[in-house]
Amino acid sequence: MLQHVLESALRQTMNRLVRPVLNPAVPVPLQRRIVRQAYRSSTPPRGAKFENITIGGVPATRTTFGNDPRGAVLYLHGGGYIIGSSSTHRGITGHLAKTTGCAIVTPDYRLAPEFPFPAALDDAEACWNGLLEAGLKPDQIAVAGDSAGGGLSVALAMRLRDKGLQLPASLTAFSPWIDLTQEQLYAPEIEPVLQASWTSKAARLYAGKEPLTNPLISPIFGDLSGLPPLLIQVGSQEILLNDAERLAEAASRNDVETRLEVYNSLWHVFQVHSGQLDRATAALETAGEHIKRHLAD
Amino acid sequence: MLQHVLESALRQTMNRLVRPVLNPAVPVPLQRRIVRQAYRSSTPPRGAKFENITIGGVPATRTTFGNDPRGAVLYLHGGGYIIGSSSTHRGITGHLAKTTGCAIVTPDYRLAPEFPFPAALDDAEACWNGLLEAGLKPDQIAVAGDSAGGGLSVALAMRLRDKGLQLPASLTAFSPWIDLTQEQLYAPEIEPVLQASWTSKAARLYAGKEPLTNPLISPIFGDLSGLPPLLIQVGSQEILLNDAERLAEAASRNDVETRLEVYNSLWHVFQVHSGQLDRATAALETAGEHIKRHLAD
Repeated sequence: MLQHVLESALRQTMNRLVRPVLNPAVPVPLQRRIVRQAYRSSTPPRGAKFENITIGGVPATRTTFGNDPRGAVLYLHGGGYIIGSSSTHRGITGHLAKTTGCAIVTPDYRLAPEFPFPAALDDAEACWNGLLEAGLKPDQIAVAGDSAGGGLSVALAMRLRDKGLQLPASLTAFSPWIDLTQEQLYAPEIEPVLQASWTSKAARLYAGKEPLTNPLISPIFGDLSGLPPLLIQVGSQEILLNDAERLAEAASRNDVETRLEVYNSLWHVFQVHSGQLDRATAALETAGEHIKRHLAD
Repeated sequence: MLQHVLESALRQTMNRLVRPVLNPAVPVPLQRRIVRQAYRSSTPPRGAKFENITIGGVPATRTTFGNDPRGAVLYLHGGGYIIGSSSTHRGITGHLAKTTGCAIVTPDYRLAPEFPFPAALDDAEACWNGLLEAGLKPDQIAVAGDSAGGGLSVALAMRLRDKGLQLPASLTAFSPWIDLTQEQLYAPEIEPVLQASWTSKAARLYAGKEPLTNPLISPIFGDLSGLPPLLIQVGSQEILLNDAERLAEAASRNDVETRLEVYNSLWHVFQVHSGQLDRATAALETAGEHIKRHLAD
């Protein structure tokens, strides 16, 4: 019952503090600053360690929990390709370090509008290559991400596949954004986080001169065959519910092992409330199981 | 690698031994007899115990693993509402008893064509009531089923909801059949088990004089709101992939906590191979986790 009250309070907080900022009228630098503040309430578990590193030439945060992490998760944060950082996502990456036992590597990939497509994807790929150069094998690395980072995770796997390279052990996408044309957005009664006007502007800023239907920008327009086992988590109170379900459908039709979890009455990337909201904690435990199950020793 | 060979061998076995029998040209009594034989290869784990009982006036099998089972699973077997029994499904129910720690109660509900709709649903409901009379509370009972039994599980929950009664703790549906009109069947390249001509005939035999769009026959045409947390598992090589995905989509839009798992390159109710095929064993472990997570003490 307390959890129910907490869920309601968190929904209101998101609705009052985050949603108004994710607004095309708010200058992007201000969005970045406020979101950095707001996400301080998304706290990692006690004992999580954060280390600033550079990998494949990209600045990143390496998050571990306990000693002797095994394998790595390349974690691509969300923020519509225009905001967010490894710092805003310490809550999620800290809890993922705990539930996976892996080192979580979160690159601060370049953001639009300063750096439009394919800068984010290039940085994600450079970070992937950096992990291989550090001695990890592809099947010892999972790729995961939320929102824009969820779409970017799929795009990275598609690019590696198209180059004939070995793929990550698994993919995990929280509330993934996989159709930047936004022509099939869901219309929930309650949407505590995202405004379609904001994601539309972010889409244009990221795509730059590229069409929004470029499969590396909007993976739903691409070929998903050959991708590794995919876990998708999404809330029922978000405009991206359709994105998640369409990704699951397209992946399963391409014979990709696919799991879709829809968390009723929760919102966009509710996993930031892990450690506070039991269902968010449980979601990252499930994600941890998925990642561990497919990771090679 | 051995598992890969086994998977291929099991697919061929299903294709050569089961699929030809699930044929509208084969008399139903003969289908029942051959399927009973064929499913002897679906073996329960060593230590599972089976007991013939009558509950709510319905003959059933009670399956347990170890002493002191906690809570119950009302398990509704598949077979297109025309074949199958608690005996053909000892493999699945035995493994579920193991992974849930529950008593699995599998009614031998009446089958069509002798007993068309709503006989199966009436028997399922009678069995549910029998469990309550035996002292269990609704939140100590999960409902699960495969194929026709998956659809029947959803229909039972809808009927209980419409009567204003307390609902089971969770729903679990393996390859559920939720649209008997079959107007949106999936067309996989490989389908080792089901022929649409057989399911079409079974649909007509079960529905009798009722329209196939009756929501208690084809739950996809009904209101799914208020249903308990739902886990759906399906193979990518089956004509019912669409049924599973449409159920997940409809449930999540009605704010039902929904999990969909698509097992690539597996077939209709592959969980019968639990104990042999690792991925089938893992699927029933996941189902067991889902059931345990939502069951009250």
